[in-house]
Amino acid sequence: MFLPTEIIQKKKLGLEHSREEIAFLVNSFTAGDLPEYQMSAWLMAVYFKGLSTQEISFLTEIMMRSGRTIDFSAGFYGTKNLCVDKHSTGGVGDKTSLIIAPLVAAAGVSVPLVAGRGLGHTGGTLDKLESIPGFNVNISIENFREQIARVGTSIIGQTDEFCPADKKIYALRDVTSTVDSIPLICASIMSKKLALGADAIVLDVKFGSGAFMKSLGEARVLAQMLAEIGRRAGRKVSALLTDMSQPLGRFIGNSLEVGECLAIMSGEKFLGENRFDDTVELSLALAAEMIFLGGKAPNTTKAYEIARDLLQDGSALRKFKEFCQAQGGDLNSVKQSSKKYEVRAASSGCVQAFDTEKIGLAALSLGAGRRKVTDVIDHTAGLQVHAKISEEVERGDLLFTVYGENEALFEEAKIMLLSATNISLQKTRSPSLIAERC
Amino acid sequence: MFLPTEIIQKKKLGLEHSREEIAFLVNSFTAGDLPEYQMSAWLMAVYFKGLSTQEISFLTEIMMRSGRTIDFSAGFYGTKNLCVDKHSTGGVGDKTSLIIAPLVAAAGVSVPLVAGRGLGHTGGTLDKLESIPGFNVNISIENFREQIARVGTSIIGQTDEFCPADKKIYALRDVTSTVDSIPLICASIMSKKLALGADAIVLDVKFGSGAFMKSLGEARVLAQMLAEIGRRAGRKVSALLTDMSQPLGRFIGNSLEVGECLAIMSGEKFLGENRFDDTVELSLALAAEMIFLGGKAPNTTKAYEIARDLLQDGSALRKFKEFCQAQGGDLNSVKQSSKKYEVRAASSGCVQAFDTEKIGLAALSLGAGRRKVTDVIDHTAGLQVHAKISEEVERGDLLFTVYGENEALFEEAKIMLLSATNISLQKTRSPSLIAERC
Repeated sequence: MFLPTEIIQKKKLGLEHSREEIAFLVNSFTAGDLPEYQMSAWLMAVYFKGLSTQEISFLTEIMMRSGRTIDFSAGFYGTKNLCVDKHSTGGVGDKTSLIIAPLVAAAGVSVPLVAGRGLGHTGGTLDKLESIPGFNVNISIENFREQIARVGTSIIGQTDEFCPADKKIYALRDVTSTVDSIPLICASIMSKKLALGADAIVLDVKFGSGAFMKSLGEARVLAQMLAEIGRRAGRKVSALLTDMSQPLGRFIGNSLEVGECLAIMSGEKFLGENRFDDTVELSLALAAEMIFLGGKAPNTTKAYEIARDLLQDGSALRKFKEFCQAQGGDLNSVKQSSKKYEVRAASSGCVQAFDTEKIGLAALSLGAGRRKVTDVIDHTAGLQVHAKISEEVERGDLLFTVYGENEALFEEAKIMLLSATNISLQKTRSPSLIAERC
Repeated sequence: MFLPTEIIQKKKLGLEHSREEIAFLVNSFTAGDLPEYQMSAWLMAVYFKGLSTQEISFLTEIMMRSGRTIDFSAGFYGTKNLCVDKHSTGGVGDKTSLIIAPLVAAAGVSVPLVAGRGLGHTGGTLDKLESIPGFNVNISIENFREQIARVGTSIIGQTDEFCPADKKIYALRDVTSTVDSIPLICASIMSKKLALGADAIVLDVKFGSGAFMKSLGEARVLAQMLAEIGRRAGRKVSALLTDMSQPLGRFIGNSLEVGECLAIMSGEKFLGENRFDDTVELSLALAAEMIFLGGKAPNTTKAYEIARDLLQDGSALRKFKEFCQAQGGDLNSVKQSSKKYEVRAASSGCVQAFDTEKIGLAALSLGAGRRKVTDVIDHTAGLQVHAKISEEVERGDLLFTVYGENEALFEEAKIMLLSATNISLQKTRSPSLIAERC
């Protein structure tokens, strides 16, 4: 038996915990035996003193084992494919999962995704899928496995069955200002990934004004830690460090992002736009990592070519339609907003930078996301980004188009968008999208 | 209104709180509106980031105002004397309050003391007084004031009326490993001192192996902070930094310490011992500070002479008897242990050092203190210290005599005492008792 105060004291002094100490803390907290005030004191001590890689491994494993785990070993339901999972740390306009899941499945790699909802300024894959009428993200684990075996991919929501310890600890971190701790973020992400039982995991760790990690350095520390924890648990892991200093693609908002994905997969325009190079580039790069780790290519260069071909020849689109149909989604009835509002440049120049978090919050304010769990989303709400970093605009040119059902919200969004956009006469270059692979 | 998470975040980043933020936190926690898990996260952030002097002042004042305060302004119940309070941070064998209170009262300074019980390895004045049969420490505030006006001094226990915020916060610190934070220790001590309403406060801040502060440096930081907080609240404050690298005096344990005090005040021997120079020196030094701040001497040198004379001419003893009688204590029936056990030196040499905390714990293990609040004290249990630092012993000489009703505990205490005593052939000097005044 351990004394909780001694465990807190140990971390306060920066000492390393044993597996047994972490197990005692997490398991007795999850069971309701350890009071919240002791857990929150420990969490704050972890914020200041950190956790060693070994401690993060223990914490991850113990949180993972607090609930159900899924087995996707080769041979489940007769499939011979490897399973590869994908995780993004969250961004603005990041809709790549909707392209990657069917694309990688089309290459013969199983893609089981447990996705999240929008959180603060970042969008959530579940909300995007639910903008497709009929799409059901609440299917049983058995049906999830069956669909992955049959279709190659399925995307569902986090259920209470997985990692109840993480859920309870995260709720406490949220109200005690201990969310922004890299060891705790790492254990939270990886416990859920490991519970899913995929053979490999591809991570998209974002940095920049629209990401939780504002600098490349911070993102690198997190990415290396996530990869190391995954590898220690016997998984293959790749991580890309990707730029989030501007929104990804041209659309932000749930049904708007579905529209962008359909346009990319079908090679058509959407609302007059087809400059989707960054969404395509990131989707292909992440898909290539997954196809490589899924054993369908000898290296990532070859895997990239496979992914590019499957996107161009319509295979990804066909798989996407099959996937939507399997989960009840009707792509023909996706609704777009009938109301729009134009935000134009007040001066001429080159777009230097965005406060991308603020752009995400502008989309949130239009109803594209939730401030609190009970908020109802307007699936048609969002933004179109006409000018991105390095692009030239004249005074009066379109910068953004605002969409949504509630026109009363448009003016406030406009003010936020203009203050989030930095235009000056100086020339600047577009930031490179993929900074590093680790 | 404030958001608790934002206040926690602010301290986590090392920023300074406003008075309003601290008041919100403390008052809503005391009222039961702020959850314990948020308070404990804040306390841990304070442990790591500290509090400014201004913040400690605010915290002290707000905790002080959370309950009743007493007014001892000149003229209460017709007395013209100034009131001077005394506080010790706690040590082993520290019985000076029992000598100082009557001695200073005999000099015409009112001494209102709200004392504590033994905590861990340190003894408590209340427990010592309660070893005097009939002594009542639970008298009403009105009777407390009346007795101080009439007798010159009274010692009572902490009641729930004073500083309920401190009581509740301390209980939380105790179970979240946030006790050892100088700003929090300072606010806790001073809120109770300021609630008492004395004109001046004399502090005995101990350092060394038997004190909470192990080094002079730590003790100095605490003493300076305590003095500054008191002065900002309009009180005169003196602080002495005193050595606790060995037990004070020759006896540890409740009725044994009463015996030592009576011996000092009467000039007699107690259990064959009369080498009480350190207890006398510290009592006189602290009494001198109090007599000086109480306006009865132009400087501390003169005040020291007054104190010395009142001790030698029997005035202190007479006042002590009057004080005990006023609170119902019968000095004639103080009981000492009938059982004793001798601990002898295993080798010859000079006493180099003590693990004084361990000596305190040995006394605790005999029943002189409490491990938990519900433990019952053996008032006769304790130790006699025959050899102190710098004294020479031969193999087989008496080092300690162990006293108490439960002989089954003697052997374990002996092992603790021998391992807490460092004897070697090297000569060493006695540490100086009073290191600094601030």
